[in-house]
Amino acid sequence: MQLSTQNSFMASSRATRVLSLTRRPFSSSSLKFDAGVSMVQGASRGIGLEFVKQLLEKNDKGHVVATCRNPDASTGLAHLKHQFPDRLKLLPLDLTLETSIQASASSVKETYGHLNLLVNASGILSIPQVLQPETSLNKLEKSALMLTYEINAVGPILVIKHMWPLLKVGGGFGTERSTAVVASLSARVGSIGDNHLGGWHSYRSSKTALNQLSKTAAVEFARKKDPIVCILLHPGTVDTDLSKPFQKNVPKEKLFSKEFSVQKLLSIIDNVKSNDNGKFFAWDGQEIPW
Amino acid sequence: MQLSTQNSFMASSRATRVLSLTRRPFSSSSLKFDAGVSMVQGASRGIGLEFVKQLLEKNDKGHVVATCRNPDASTGLAHLKHQFPDRLKLLPLDLTLETSIQASASSVKETYGHLNLLVNASGILSIPQVLQPETSLNKLEKSALMLTYEINAVGPILVIKHMWPLLKVGGGFGTERSTAVVASLSARVGSIGDNHLGGWHSYRSSKTALNQLSKTAAVEFARKKDPIVCILLHPGTVDTDLSKPFQKNVPKEKLFSKEFSVQKLLSIIDNVKSNDNGKFFAWDGQEIPW
Repeated sequence: MQLSTQNSFMASSRATRVLSLTRRPFSSSSLKFDAGVSMVQGASRGIGLEFVKQLLEKNDKGHVVATCRNPDASTGLAHLKHQFPDRLKLLPLDLTLETSIQASASSVKETYGHLNLLVNASGILSIPQVLQPETSLNKLEKSALMLTYEINAVGPILVIKHMWPLLKVGGGFGTERSTAVVASLSARVGSIGDNHLGGWHSYRSSKTALNQLSKTAAVEFARKKDPIVCILLHPGTVDTDLSKPFQKNVPKEKLFSKEFSVQKLLSIIDNVKSNDNGKFFAWDGQEIPW
Repeated sequence: MQLSTQNSFMASSRATRVLSLTRRPFSSSSLKFDAGVSMVQGASRGIGLEFVKQLLEKNDKGHVVATCRNPDASTGLAHLKHQFPDRLKLLPLDLTLETSIQASASSVKETYGHLNLLVNASGILSIPQVLQPETSLNKLEKSALMLTYEINAVGPILVIKHMWPLLKVGGGFGTERSTAVVASLSARVGSIGDNHLGGWHSYRSSKTALNQLSKTAAVEFARKKDPIVCILLHPGTVDTDLSKPFQKNVPKEKLFSKEFSVQKLLSIIDNVKSNDNGKFFAWDGQEIPW
């Protein structure tokens, strides 16, 4: 793992903290993240909730911070908290308020001192009576463009901004990996090169912007030799509340369960290498053009 | 030129209107747009103003609609209006207000009935005390991300939305071209594939989003067989107020004059073909990766 000189103080204080987390010998965990600290942002339901579940189930030491606007309202999170009281921390995080993102970073810092994995899983596509994916340019509304950008692009990059110092401290310590990972859920429709169908202007544009913002962060992480790999993931079309209203034209074999998709995505995250930094992968590991 | 059935009524009424504009024989104009109606959005200064100037100077029949927030405050536009009182129409257009965009479309419709060229030339990069291109992820501010997206991506696509019916009616009529053209000023830093330096998060992200939004529009124009080609242009680093604070590391031979850049861009616009629809070109005609 490479660390720049300016990080050496933080690195040594981290080492002390991390040792206490790795006292137990490595088990035959199925994830390299093992005893690491992971954060899943957008964890109340769907793909985010499934990430929390699999991260907890696939090893017996790792800690998971699950964030969403109102964790108390998520029955899925309540169930997991009951099952993993010591290894799951629920935190309120409102993506639209930078102070709320900052507060979660402080809370994670206080409890764990670092992060090894950040999954940005939040995202909006439609809200009844408020937001509908556009079928034509003449249905474009400024409010829809702005809201989708705020939630799908601005929120996640601000989370990366505030978790950055914790990921830098974390790197691969306490895990079998050599770097920390930031994985943000993008979507194939965010690819400009792959856009042959048109439509869904607001959603496409927000995910394309997220791709550029993540790539820009990745370039900086590499330049500063921070031990962080930052990637973008396309989960496929997954049977969740987000895709529910738009599943009718999806062939059955292309509609994935949350379990399947997250299993595939976790495998990509777990095996990602330093030279994958800044790349955009589909669930099957194929790179997607910008 | 191909027109869908639903446009045939509009096309015939357009033909009558356009004939009156093309009564004079073609001169040895240096632009195929010739007697067409062009609109330049963001025309108060810099590249936009230069587009207005060259469009007026390069033929003796074409009409130009120049829009900006406050045309009365632009000495450059006042000068051109004095020189070309009959062929230049100044219109106020505030990109941040969809009602203002709509009002300009109504005004253009009333005066000319159609458009043959739309140039989206507006854009922001920095505003003293308000907006500075970010040199690091930790300088990212939500307000900067939102403002830049609103001006550089949302505004231009809403202009395309409202001018679309006029461009569809216009196509290539009254010009030596077979289609209308929408050309939006993007920037090479909006390319994700070409992002090797990082930084400038807000500006990059807004231009990347503009690329996706324009590509999405282009796909719809092609599917509906509308006689419109929609492209994105990188003007190079041009000596304007926008680039002024960031010119110090630009080699002299890479800092273009407005005259040179717009001459190159107009040549691309003038020669663009239907299969260029949805593409992203640099000033020298080279395609830029997404």
